[in-house]
Amino acid sequence: MDFVFHLNSRSTIALYRQLYSELRLGILAGRFEAGARLPGSRHLADSLGISRMTVNECYERLASEGYLETRPRSGTFVCKSLPDLSFSPASPGIRESVPQSRFLPRLSRYGAAVNAPLRRPDSPGIIRLNMHGPDVVNFPVNLWSQLQNRRMKSGRSDLLDYTQHFAGDIQLRHAITMYLRKSRALICGPDQVIIVSGSQQAIYLTARLLLNEGDVVAMESPGYRLAAKVFSSQGAAILPIPVDAHGMKVSELKKHGARAKLVYLTPSHQYPTGVSLSRGRRMELLHWARKSHTLILEDDYDSEFRYSGRPLPSLQGMVDDAPVLYTGTFSKMLFPSLRLGYVVVPRSMKNAFTSAKMLSDFQSPSFEQAVLADFINERHLEPYIRRMRTIYGRRRELFIHALKKHFGSRVKILGDNAGVYVMAEFKTNLSQSEAHARTFRNGVSLEQLYWPGKAPPPRAGRVSFVCAFAGRTDAELPLAAELVASALL
Amino acid sequence: MDFVFHLNSRSTIALYRQLYSELRLGILAGRFEAGARLPGSRHLADSLGISRMTVNECYERLASEGYLETRPRSGTFVCKSLPDLSFSPASPGIRESVPQSRFLPRLSRYGAAVNAPLRRPDSPGIIRLNMHGPDVVNFPVNLWSQLQNRRMKSGRSDLLDYTQHFAGDIQLRHAITMYLRKSRALICGPDQVIIVSGSQQAIYLTARLLLNEGDVVAMESPGYRLAAKVFSSQGAAILPIPVDAHGMKVSELKKHGARAKLVYLTPSHQYPTGVSLSRGRRMELLHWARKSHTLILEDDYDSEFRYSGRPLPSLQGMVDDAPVLYTGTFSKMLFPSLRLGYVVVPRSMKNAFTSAKMLSDFQSPSFEQAVLADFINERHLEPYIRRMRTIYGRRRELFIHALKKHFGSRVKILGDNAGVYVMAEFKTNLSQSEAHARTFRNGVSLEQLYWPGKAPPPRAGRVSFVCAFAGRTDAELPLAAELVASALL
Repeated sequence: MDFVFHLNSRSTIALYRQLYSELRLGILAGRFEAGARLPGSRHLADSLGISRMTVNECYERLASEGYLETRPRSGTFVCKSLPDLSFSPASPGIRESVPQSRFLPRLSRYGAAVNAPLRRPDSPGIIRLNMHGPDVVNFPVNLWSQLQNRRMKSGRSDLLDYTQHFAGDIQLRHAITMYLRKSRALICGPDQVIIVSGSQQAIYLTARLLLNEGDVVAMESPGYRLAAKVFSSQGAAILPIPVDAHGMKVSELKKHGARAKLVYLTPSHQYPTGVSLSRGRRMELLHWARKSHTLILEDDYDSEFRYSGRPLPSLQGMVDDAPVLYTGTFSKMLFPSLRLGYVVVPRSMKNAFTSAKMLSDFQSPSFEQAVLADFINERHLEPYIRRMRTIYGRRRELFIHALKKHFGSRVKILGDNAGVYVMAEFKTNLSQSEAHARTFRNGVSLEQLYWPGKAPPPRAGRVSFVCAFAGRTDAELPLAAELVASALL
Repeated sequence: MDFVFHLNSRSTIALYRQLYSELRLGILAGRFEAGARLPGSRHLADSLGISRMTVNECYERLASEGYLETRPRSGTFVCKSLPDLSFSPASPGIRESVPQSRFLPRLSRYGAAVNAPLRRPDSPGIIRLNMHGPDVVNFPVNLWSQLQNRRMKSGRSDLLDYTQHFAGDIQLRHAITMYLRKSRALICGPDQVIIVSGSQQAIYLTARLLLNEGDVVAMESPGYRLAAKVFSSQGAAILPIPVDAHGMKVSELKKHGARAKLVYLTPSHQYPTGVSLSRGRRMELLHWARKSHTLILEDDYDSEFRYSGRPLPSLQGMVDDAPVLYTGTFSKMLFPSLRLGYVVVPRSMKNAFTSAKMLSDFQSPSFEQAVLADFINERHLEPYIRRMRTIYGRRRELFIHALKKHFGSRVKILGDNAGVYVMAEFKTNLSQSEAHARTFRNGVSLEQLYWPGKAPPPRAGRVSFVCAFAGRTDAELPLAAELVASALL
């Protein structure tokens, strides 16, 4: 690859000066890396259409100034340590303390709403009970590798090219349809299934397709922070609906939600309380939604992991042609960085959803979709889910047992016996934020509850946290419980 | 995996009737596939908490009605051919002629703007000169497989988990920085590089961050259809700026663009005319943009493929702290279905862009990012680009030669000797749309020019098409030229 230079033969500045500045600034800016070999003077002169002497003079002057060094019989190299220390080239890590740009963008209202620094990565030592990923250590990487190999070497070059199916790989959509009909009782055809990059994209695109600025979206309170952020950054007004032991209080929605265009909820395993929406409320919600012409976004993010009791069927499948968008993800079933999920849409929304997906990122990666279709079709998914269900069930017990050992009656575990996390309520004299800070200092990162709208007044002597146990090892969980106890007791 | 049933023990409808309806409707809706084995009656009865006799009665009645068949010592199966033919289960393909939903969504303005059917896939026989993908047949799948294997088996489980780096894999961002500094003369640090799912996502997110409804975005005319669709669906007004042999007419932009918040352009290789923006216009554009506080989105989609002449450096790197978002993609360099691209943003836009990426799909797939970083860092990218540049250069010659053989002076090839397509102007008495239809009937799909705003009046006796040659084989190209000739001559 040739280096590119900004030389202008029609400029009034001599070519020698231009090349000199270019090289010097390029070295200081890190464009030419420390230790990098520069092109030979003859080669560079030829490619730039300038004399070799000009190049040699530049190289010599920069060498005398400490930017370059010439090694006999090897060539000219950028010095490893540079004269202007204040301009050292970018280090291999991502520098955070960089000079701010003079350029101030005129952001849109959306741009202004999202313009905030993101959370910094946790330090490596911390036990991250705030991360909702599954266990990835037990993932069958050898099997996945085999499937990848087979697909990559199959000679099917269409898997590498642009897709013609923006809603996703047909085999994968069919496999997901069969899985959802069977295990989640959905009523749908593969034409209604659209492949997205995880349920985050499903939530984002749904909001984009439904909500104008000022529109109302109802969601559970406490609820899922990132969904709320998607809605509010798009200018929607959030109507928080309280949750009790039977899930979202649909009566409250009916009372206050007349203007809601969208209801976002997690009926199978409410996030974060872990309860499931009762059958009565489900039917009430569906009837109300149909009557009031409101769409429901059913986020079924971890319903695969239910350790006792009868699994509840999806809201989408309870009535025919339900006013429901149903989303699920392979982030919890397989691994999160795969970025494949699905949304099942009413037939009247197929075109709009597929177009919105296409305009936002053209398509999801084809190759991974084909590998995933093979994984499902060759009957690896269901045994893997069963296996992980056993592991997570055990970890849940292990963690709760350890908490009870330390806290006794001073801890209460909420929600159903299901999912990748538990919500725990602790008796303590600390405030919620003190408790969070102390457990963090002890080396455990717990998740705070998120209340869209106004949080209820704190209950004296009690604090609550979400504890995501599924991705933590059997060894980490008792340790985490002990560290939480020593922080709160 | 257990089947899920909607039984309600508190319903007034007998459990027998409920189970019967559920099974029958489930079979008709395709939830229970033709040929599928149903759970044994004892197992099903236990899991539902009902009597085994109830299950047996249901099975028998459905068998007598032709829905189920019982095979001695194997179990109960859904019949392969069902009594209600009008309700046959979904076929493995994606059916297109499905009953419309009664549910009519209240779409947002954005939803309404994108709610249109997408183009149907081309029939397999057609030579697709309208597809801008690279050649994927020569892609080193064995090498890529090896890199995948090594990463998958590296034991680094963090590659499978949720990322903590929403802007993308640090190694990949560093590798891209080095590549862009060297080969495209960008002035940037890795902290400014954000990994996106191809340049489509870069365009989408840029529009989202900059444009409110009613804002003005300037773009080249003729130009890139999908970028225009992104802008207009978000409610922006498009200001078309004409293109001549030196690229976008910056003087027109200066005359009419006072209100523009964003200028989208393809300076290295204008899409579709193939010309490059002159040095003088580049500096003029940058100065104007800085003065008028306008942001430039530089789409550098195929500049790697230049077959003669000195490569032009990027607009972004021509001045320090340029008001430029620069985007490029591995879709043309490697393969499109990888869905990895990058955007280099001014430091003052890092947070907003990273947040917008995170809210839209959380992150790009980690595993592919790591494999790609290895591919670049182990020095496979540049040799591969050089190799493909030779192949594409040859194909370009081959195609132009074949066109000239048939058309002689009646064909004119426009633009620079670069890129993955050529624009060709043919002398013919057919109209543009007749010419397009006739070539299509002859088996060649050519791309029509897209004019944001008003198309210029057709030039009598001349038609123009974009012909993407890079992804077509050496055998297809002369054939395509012949088929085009027999359609137009």
